[in-house]
Amino acid sequence: MSRVKLTIEYDGTAYAGWQLQANGPSVQARIEEALLQLTGSAVRVHSASRTDAGVHARGMVIHFDVERSLPLSAYREGMNRYLPQDVAVCAAEYVAEDFHSRFCNSGKWYRYTLCQAPVRSPLFARTSWHVSRVLDLEVMRRAAACFEGCYDFSAFRSSRCSAKTTVKELTVVTVIDDTPLIYIDVEGSGFLQNMVRIMAGTLVEIGLHKRSPDSIAELLQNGRRADAGRTAPAHGLCLMRINYAPGYNRRGTVLYGGREKVNKNNKKA
Amino acid sequence: MSRVKLTIEYDGTAYAGWQLQANGPSVQARIEEALLQLTGSAVRVHSASRTDAGVHARGMVIHFDVERSLPLSAYREGMNRYLPQDVAVCAAEYVAEDFHSRFCNSGKWYRYTLCQAPVRSPLFARTSWHVSRVLDLEVMRRAAACFEGCYDFSAFRSSRCSAKTTVKELTVVTVIDDTPLIYIDVEGSGFLQNMVRIMAGTLVEIGLHKRSPDSIAELLQNGRRADAGRTAPAHGLCLMRINYAPGYNRRGTVLYGGREKVNKNNKKA
Repeated sequence: MSRVKLTIEYDGTAYAGWQLQANGPSVQARIEEALLQLTGSAVRVHSASRTDAGVHARGMVIHFDVERSLPLSAYREGMNRYLPQDVAVCAAEYVAEDFHSRFCNSGKWYRYTLCQAPVRSPLFARTSWHVSRVLDLEVMRRAAACFEGCYDFSAFRSSRCSAKTTVKELTVVTVIDDTPLIYIDVEGSGFLQNMVRIMAGTLVEIGLHKRSPDSIAELLQNGRRADAGRTAPAHGLCLMRINYAPGYNRRGTVLYGGREKVNKNNKKA
Repeated sequence: MSRVKLTIEYDGTAYAGWQLQANGPSVQARIEEALLQLTGSAVRVHSASRTDAGVHARGMVIHFDVERSLPLSAYREGMNRYLPQDVAVCAAEYVAEDFHSRFCNSGKWYRYTLCQAPVRSPLFARTSWHVSRVLDLEVMRRAAACFEGCYDFSAFRSSRCSAKTTVKELTVVTVIDDTPLIYIDVEGSGFLQNMVRIMAGTLVEIGLHKRSPDSIAELLQNGRRADAGRTAPAHGLCLMRINYAPGYNRRGTVLYGGREKVNKNNKKA
């Protein structure tokens, strides 16, 4: 048995979310269908995160086990032939059998994209939230910096969120100007449901001078969801990268066995 | 009668091109349909350029005449309500009655976008040409600079191109790294059919070391289309901006009349 780690990019527009859904197409279903076609057997995949309907990803990470080792190119070039145009495997590796995409990761980088323009933009419509009025980026940057550190993010989670602990550490919260696009980049070790989208919605209200930048410190203190801003729409959010500690893939014997087996069959390796 | 100038953005993916087509949807048809809904009468619009099937625009310019002046917000916010999500009016102005979007413009800026990544990218698939191998950007930049100036671009036009003169002046041809995206920006006073796409196809061959950067000077000399590179695919091309000389909209009495009339009815102006 070998454990495979894949990095996946997708345009979430057409999907009801990452996870298998009873009533809508999911990215996970597309991946498992492609794996079935590639390997001839049903494979259940496990993901580092579960993005909501409409959210995009440039670096979703998943893992799964296979009985028979295939060359790594089969998981990348091979699967991309079976996947629809809005989903692709970017990278494939064999990992130790105790690697887990969700439990082993050390953090995530999310990007929330705004499009600041007087009218909606057809070319950026799928991947950004349109804000028609001018945003004060300086005041947004000042407010964004208040999120950096270890805080109770109760005010920044969906009422449906069932996480046991609401204390999370964010290492980077920054606002980048790439006119007409504006990126809110957030990196941290853990996230609550809708956390980045509520942060983005609150920062936009601050950028429009509807709310003081000091309100971030108050919200982190009082923890009241109702006092924070609206949840920014899903289609502006993108899961950029999932971090694993250096050397995460250099333990266990299965890995090396897997690699050696692969190297024999795979001229590209 | 008043003449209106509109700036239009569109995602060309779903269209058979800008121009009205017998056998496929066109952006022009969507614009004329929205104008019919807005004004109640059939309006024929004239464009500065005619983009091919699949080509995008962030700054297409059109003009048309209307009997009854409406507030400018009707042409922007109003039309955007009738237009599909992949087409939008970005700006509207009243211009002099001798303004012509095609004959008055002093130049255009096109951007060709490449996505350099080992595998196809779902998020950039609609708006970039995927190049899986690594491009040598330095050699591409050296070659791009050879296009700047006034030359006979016969080697860089489609065999269907019927332009009378093939001598065109390019003021800027530059290669910009925005990894994983690479932009080939081209500005000039005039363009031949498929000119930017053949330039992009040739520059990519140079970036892959399949062709010498010196071949650009030879092609501009010998004018043989067959010796140039392939025509890069349409979906990587975007018409960014159409330039008009400063003061283009400051002549003629109709303009000021139109403006004054609008200002009375339009509280936003």
